[in-house]
Amino acid sequence: MTTDPMILAKMDAAIRAALEEDMPFGDVSTMAVMPEPRPGRVQLICKQDGVVAGLSVFERAFQLIDPAARVERLVEDGDAVTVGQHLATVFADVRALLEAERVALNFLQRMSGVATYTARIARVLEGTGTRLVCTRKTTPGMRLFEREAVRLGGGHLHRYGLSDAVMLKDNHIDAAGGVRQAIEAARATAPFVAKVEVECESLDMVREAVDAGADIIMLDNMSHDDMAEAVALIGGRAITEASGNVTAQNAAEYADLGVDIVSCGALTHSAGILDLSLKHLEVLG
Amino acid sequence: MTTDPMILAKMDAAIRAALEEDMPFGDVSTMAVMPEPRPGRVQLICKQDGVVAGLSVFERAFQLIDPAARVERLVEDGDAVTVGQHLATVFADVRALLEAERVALNFLQRMSGVATYTARIARVLEGTGTRLVCTRKTTPGMRLFEREAVRLGGGHLHRYGLSDAVMLKDNHIDAAGGVRQAIEAARATAPFVAKVEVECESLDMVREAVDAGADIIMLDNMSHDDMAEAVALIGGRAITEASGNVTAQNAAEYADLGVDIVSCGALTHSAGILDLSLKHLEVLG
Amino acid sequence: MTTDPMILAKMDAAIRAALEEDMPFGDVSTMAVMPEPRPGRVQLICKQDGVVAGLSVFERAFQLIDPAARVERLVEDGDAVTVGQHLATVFADVRALLEAERVALNFLQRMSGVATYTARIARVLEGTGTRLVCTRKTTPGMRLFEREAVRLGGGHLHRYGLSDAVMLKDNHIDAAGGVRQAIEAARATAPFVAKVEVECESLDMVREAVDAGADIIMLDNMSHDDMAEAVALIGGRAITEASGNVTAQNAAEYADLGVDIVSCGALTHSAGILDLSLKHLEVLG
Amino acid sequence: MTTDPMILAKMDAAIRAALEEDMPFGDVSTMAVMPEPRPGRVQLICKQDGVVAGLSVFERAFQLIDPAARVERLVEDGDAVTVGQHLATVFADVRALLEAERVALNFLQRMSGVATYTARIARVLEGTGTRLVCTRKTTPGMRLFEREAVRLGGGHLHRYGLSDAVMLKDNHIDAAGGVRQAIEAARATAPFVAKVEVECESLDMVREAVDAGADIIMLDNMSHDDMAEAVALIGGRAITEASGNVTAQNAAEYADLGVDIVSCGALTHSAGILDLSLKHLEVLG
Amino acid sequence: MTTDPMILAKMDAAIRAALEEDMPFGDVSTMAVMPEPRPGRVQLICKQDGVVAGLSVFERAFQLIDPAARVERLVEDGDAVTVGQHLATVFADVRALLEAERVALNFLQRMSGVATYTARIARVLEGTGTRLVCTRKTTPGMRLFEREAVRLGGGHLHRYGLSDAVMLKDNHIDAAGGVRQAIEAARATAPFVAKVEVECESLDMVREAVDAGADIIMLDNMSHDDMAEAVALIGGRAITEASGNVTAQNAAEYADLGVDIVSCGALTHSAGILDLSLKHLEVLG
Amino acid sequence: MTTDPMILAKMDAAIRAALEEDMPFGDVSTMAVMPEPRPGRVQLICKQDGVVAGLSVFERAFQLIDPAARVERLVEDGDAVTVGQHLATVFADVRALLEAERVALNFLQRMSGVATYTARIARVLEGTGTRLVCTRKTTPGMRLFEREAVRLGGGHLHRYGLSDAVMLKDNHIDAAGGVRQAIEAARATAPFVAKVEVECESLDMVREAVDAGADIIMLDNMSHDDMAEAVALIGGRAITEASGNVTAQNAAEYADLGVDIVSCGALTHSAGILDLSLKHLEVLG
Repeated sequence: MTTDPMILAKMDAAIRAALEEDMPFGDVSTMAVMPEPRPGRVQLICKQDGVVAGLSVFERAFQLIDPAARVERLVEDGDAVTVGQHLATVFADVRALLEAERVALNFLQRMSGVATYTARIARVLEGTGTRLVCTRKTTPGMRLFEREAVRLGGGHLHRYGLSDAVMLKDNHIDAAGGVRQAIEAARATAPFVAKVEVECESLDMVREAVDAGADIIMLDNMSHDDMAEAVALIGGRAITEASGNVTAQNAAEYADLGVDIVSCGALTHSAGILDLSLKHLEVLG
Repeated sequence: MTTDPMILAKMDAAIRAALEEDMPFGDVSTMAVMPEPRPGRVQLICKQDGVVAGLSVFERAFQLIDPAARVERLVEDGDAVTVGQHLATVFADVRALLEAERVALNFLQRMSGVATYTARIARVLEGTGTRLVCTRKTTPGMRLFEREAVRLGGGHLHRYGLSDAVMLKDNHIDAAGGVRQAIEAARATAPFVAKVEVECESLDMVREAVDAGADIIMLDNMSHDDMAEAVALIGGRAITEASGNVTAQNAAEYADLGVDIVSCGALTHSAGILDLSLKHLEVLG
Repeated sequence: MTTDPMILAKMDAAIRAALEEDMPFGDVSTMAVMPEPRPGRVQLICKQDGVVAGLSVFERAFQLIDPAARVERLVEDGDAVTVGQHLATVFADVRALLEAERVALNFLQRMSGVATYTARIARVLEGTGTRLVCTRKTTPGMRLFEREAVRLGGGHLHRYGLSDAVMLKDNHIDAAGGVRQAIEAARATAPFVAKVEVECESLDMVREAVDAGADIIMLDNMSHDDMAEAVALIGGRAITEASGNVTAQNAAEYADLGVDIVSCGALTHSAGILDLSLKHLEVLG
Repeated sequence: MTTDPMILAKMDAAIRAALEEDMPFGDVSTMAVMPEPRPGRVQLICKQDGVVAGLSVFERAFQLIDPAARVERLVEDGDAVTVGQHLATVFADVRALLEAERVALNFLQRMSGVATYTARIARVLEGTGTRLVCTRKTTPGMRLFEREAVRLGGGHLHRYGLSDAVMLKDNHIDAAGGVRQAIEAARATAPFVAKVEVECESLDMVREAVDAGADIIMLDNMSHDDMAEAVALIGGRAITEASGNVTAQNAAEYADLGVDIVSCGALTHSAGILDLSLKHLEVLG
Repeated sequence: MTTDPMILAKMDAAIRAALEEDMPFGDVSTMAVMPEPRPGRVQLICKQDGVVAGLSVFERAFQLIDPAARVERLVEDGDAVTVGQHLATVFADVRALLEAERVALNFLQRMSGVATYTARIARVLEGTGTRLVCTRKTTPGMRLFEREAVRLGGGHLHRYGLSDAVMLKDNHIDAAGGVRQAIEAARATAPFVAKVEVECESLDMVREAVDAGADIIMLDNMSHDDMAEAVALIGGRAITEASGNVTAQNAAEYADLGVDIVSCGALTHSAGILDLSLKHLEVLG
Repeated sequence: MTTDPMILAKMDAAIRAALEEDMPFGDVSTMAVMPEPRPGRVQLICKQDGVVAGLSVFERAFQLIDPAARVERLVEDGDAVTVGQHLATVFADVRALLEAERVALNFLQRMSGVATYTARIARVLEGTGTRLVCTRKTTPGMRLFEREAVRLGGGHLHRYGLSDAVMLKDNHIDAAGGVRQAIEAARATAPFVAKVEVECESLDMVREAVDAGADIIMLDNMSHDDMAEAVALIGGRAITEASGNVTAQNAAEYADLGVDIVSCGALTHSAGILDLSLKHLEVLG
């Protein structure tokens, strides 16, 4: 899990908002049966094979209700886990265990789902020079969490958003009047530290983009042969990124083509959750 | 789409936050090639069969950047759509079209994915007395949107969160010292307008809960036979909710049992997106 | 006092806002005479008979300025107190004692005023099956505090707001085209966990509402005889709520009628404060 | 009503928060019976004699839900009103009429209650040189509204809070080591534009405070004779403020003493509401 | 440095916002080379003669990332410092040292620049009865910090902003129809605790303002002779404030004229920074 | 001025906060003399030669109080202006003219000061291949505004902050164990779109950084000869950035050396304001 303190602070804000979303004016069930604080514990159990990711986020959900809450981990973020496995034990005020349960799991299950999906493809690329990266097709409000899950699943990171790198798509190119013009406009106005990427749908565009000094060429939904020719044509003068329906099945083909980067939106938009559960709550005092 | 003005206002805040998440300090690509406002349009194209949901949210993403933006709809929320179909045209300042594209689609694709998944199961229950509802297993921060998508897909709504109804699970029952005690504690302290639901894993629990005056009995992962016996035993004295791995395949069996409600977490936690795309951007002026 | 951690967190935000309201750019008086931190204590003295409520809120006001502040209580929330009684001693940095004094008292006096008013009526209903509840006629921004004060004074709670229960008033009924239509519309669209209450001004409306399956019938400003007839007519098929100018004088009559609930807006909108004061500040170090 | 645009903006934020407090996730009743926008109107009726205050706030509550909402006023802020009087008609989307009703009235009734209470005392002081002012004993979060209500009722304003004037109470004086020391400390550190007020409980303190150059002397709960002597002793060298249990009955006596200012906490902490109601909703289209 | 806890809380919010401004989605450099927490220290070195101000703000920047961070000071706020001097050592997690460095310095350098500039002029006025004050010409968002820096440099404070004192400029006077009318309008509507200042550009205006009872007369860009005459004419009946291009060179002349206050916008709008640097970072564990 | 709608939205939030900072509870002066809205105009006059920047920000300050406010410009952002020149006329409600005046000028004067300072150096570099850029030494909370002012003055932009590019300084290099290790760590973990810059203080470091594939080499406070040798050594394999005390006097020398970029912190940290003023307010109706 990232330890960047500023990113953790932003995550905290999102976790707190999720708790608030779930109980805008308190928890009527818990207050009925457990009106006073009492120590307790509960077990985190795995109900589906996969890769776990987000244990720190899971822990924070409880701590934002009971600052003394803690999670004893039997596994770490990024570990493969299997059905029935006891992953961790949460110790906290029983009210916190009951109130934060769903929110903690909503984060953890989703992040673990993304990590599991990512790991499946990343494994295929291991040992090749090709890296798997996610895209901006994230759930609104969840980008920090989903990128972290991709990283924990063995993936790498693309730009965070529209502010930190230039990506010129067909629409930008049309607006600028051509590939070269778009690249020159970007060089002239964007911060000089920003890399310029161009999305290319044909070999002609690739040629023009490389000549105009693009830092990264995205080969967008090209045929296998065109992609091979594009990689040859670029000849190391720019970073190459392949985009299309990347799966665990076809990932190796991309690596064989020698592209530097393979990007996959499905990592974050269609992973589904990993099934996890809190069981065996005990009141301890 | 809901027209509750207060809910729309809350959605606006989430959409604005998503735009801010995507471009914390502006869009370097768009500003390079399109530094001044110019009118434009772009088409929303369907790339996968399903049910579309969230067109108002989609439209708001553009309007929060260009207040004059508007979407001409060729379909409405809740409509079935098919691959290749032209769903709508967005008219706005080209900069808004470029800057809001990803965020608008991230919402629309996710909501449409949920609606599509929901519709598949809801269709099976049509004409029966059994309703399909979603759960609290939503994406953090997205509850309003995902519940709306369930509704547009033909589903109904469970409690919003922990504040607006009592749900007594095994942990609450243990904490209270029994089913009856938990129900009585809830009646004594929760607002009298809150219905009391009890999650039951056995026929004994069902019996005790009904006798103690539970308003809703959840039959949690029971066998088919137990569920049938439970429904008979309850005999209309409480609303019955069946929970378990509900799918389009087994939904009819639940209806045959005569339960009032079938709840399904997967509607919101594992639906995947519906593939949609913005194409053919034109600068109009 | 409630111990729901999420509700306490929301209260904190309101207390912090009240401190900020009172000193948008600091306290020029305190900084002049006490520029450095020094330990001190001050006594909370009762100046009017009543019921005290809100001691935790009172304490938090000081802690949000000096985290080490603490209140030694000689009474507890909900206790009856009398003129001249020493209720508690506050220990904190003298600057916190001076800066938070007014805000702490503004909360405590108002909550105690509500609790005192509530207790006066609730006492009359003790031992009957009739409960006293407050309404949505609360001070803007103070609902959590005022409901808590009602509870501490011996009252019970109605719905929190417009989101957590259905209440169909004359205007809703007109809009729907009739009592039955309104109830059916609510059943069709509102979450199935929401109870449906109907405000009835005549016996005909009561009859129609009960037949249509209303969960709660509010008898609104009915004559004593009509109310008696309504209760008989309902015959336990719905919860009955009486509304009108409830006072300590007439509360027993409502109980005699056998209504389940008596609701009273004045608990929160016209209680006035209970007079309390901070006295005998001592600098201790 | 104030027209200071910055104050109106702050009021808007408070009104919006109150709406959000009342419907954190929408209005289930209104959405059931009135799912689509339709124009409507409703009458504001007076149910108790008094002074109306807060019509702009009342109007904003509707406008924050339906920007096209408007209030046709038959009276203006500060006018005396009587039981049964039709005060205004609200025109708006019916959903806004239903959703904002309670919040709009909660503000208006409270402000009108404060104005009514204020007017009763202010009337007694009319034509004398003595002004009635409110204190910091306001409802948390409502200071802007309650001060405005005092003004509309014919009162004047004391300092807003701890930031904008120096007020040295017994505790400040003790901390500083004496009246003179406290005044000198204030002169040395507070902005030179801040007036310095000293709360005096004895003639000795008054003497010392005037000699040390206090700008305002508060005569706190003094006997009539002491107050008379204090006013003579001060002899116009400082503004005089009388504090104690000011009522419509005794206000004239204060004026006879010739004090400049009479301050009264009850204006804002114990006024109770003025009973008002929205009636006769009509759907217009 | 001020110790008013409420002001410190507001400063914290501004420091946190500055950290967030600098790293909206984390620090990619630090996370690359120092992914895990490790203790470290770094020295604060002076690179230009001046007055240091803002060490508490500097320290808070580190603490808001690493709560255990602390600054060992070799000098205190308000001290004169010289090139090459070691001013303090910061101990914190190395990640906090790297991430907060620039923000901590941006505050400290700017505040020290203001204090240095202020001290240069204040020194000239020492021992005279004339005080140097700053104005509202502050950097947006930085008023609390810049006023504190002025104070630490030996200056005094004018009104905080538009809310806490009346200042009638030419435009206000025109709008009111004259000096006397403007003063009377202010007396009639502004809180009675607010002093009334009038900006005068001629001796006639001075005369009218004093006669109408202004508390403070600002002598705005008057000639030396006019200012002398104005001071004589006022004769202690109001506080006198001189405004114009005050510098260390001409400050003594103002004091000789016997004005009470000299105000200087340049203290906050044109001071430039004091050059400071963090050097010699060591990883300690 | 930038037209990126998202950046303008962020600027709006900062302008609104500055207005709120200046009048936390309204403007007591304006409300006294001008309690009702009336149309007016005022002239923006230049009092010092320089470059104007920030007219849109200036205009927004008025519009955030009076949405109908508008500025008729006689010059545009980036234009050179001279003492006495009439730059623009503001039309708005007189209350907005009075209330927003100071905040509007505080922004405009500061931005114009930065633009003026930037233009002086940028002019020297015109026609050379060397670009002038600003740094992260900005005023807290003002980065968007100050970068925009640099751009309007003819400068270019460096990274926005810590999130959007890698910059390895001596401390990072020490932490990583060497230049090569730091670069490799950055390549391994930072998003692949982020350029990697290395701050070099010696020719050895330059050599190592280029060999390890740094994208940008910062030559930090090197002697003229070392810098020349470094540029030769790099030979176009990386972008070169010179840093040191850049002034209008020595800027040409940097250009002669052939470095790509010259960075200068003083552009934003020590520019001082450009003196501007609002004069000749007229009430129009």
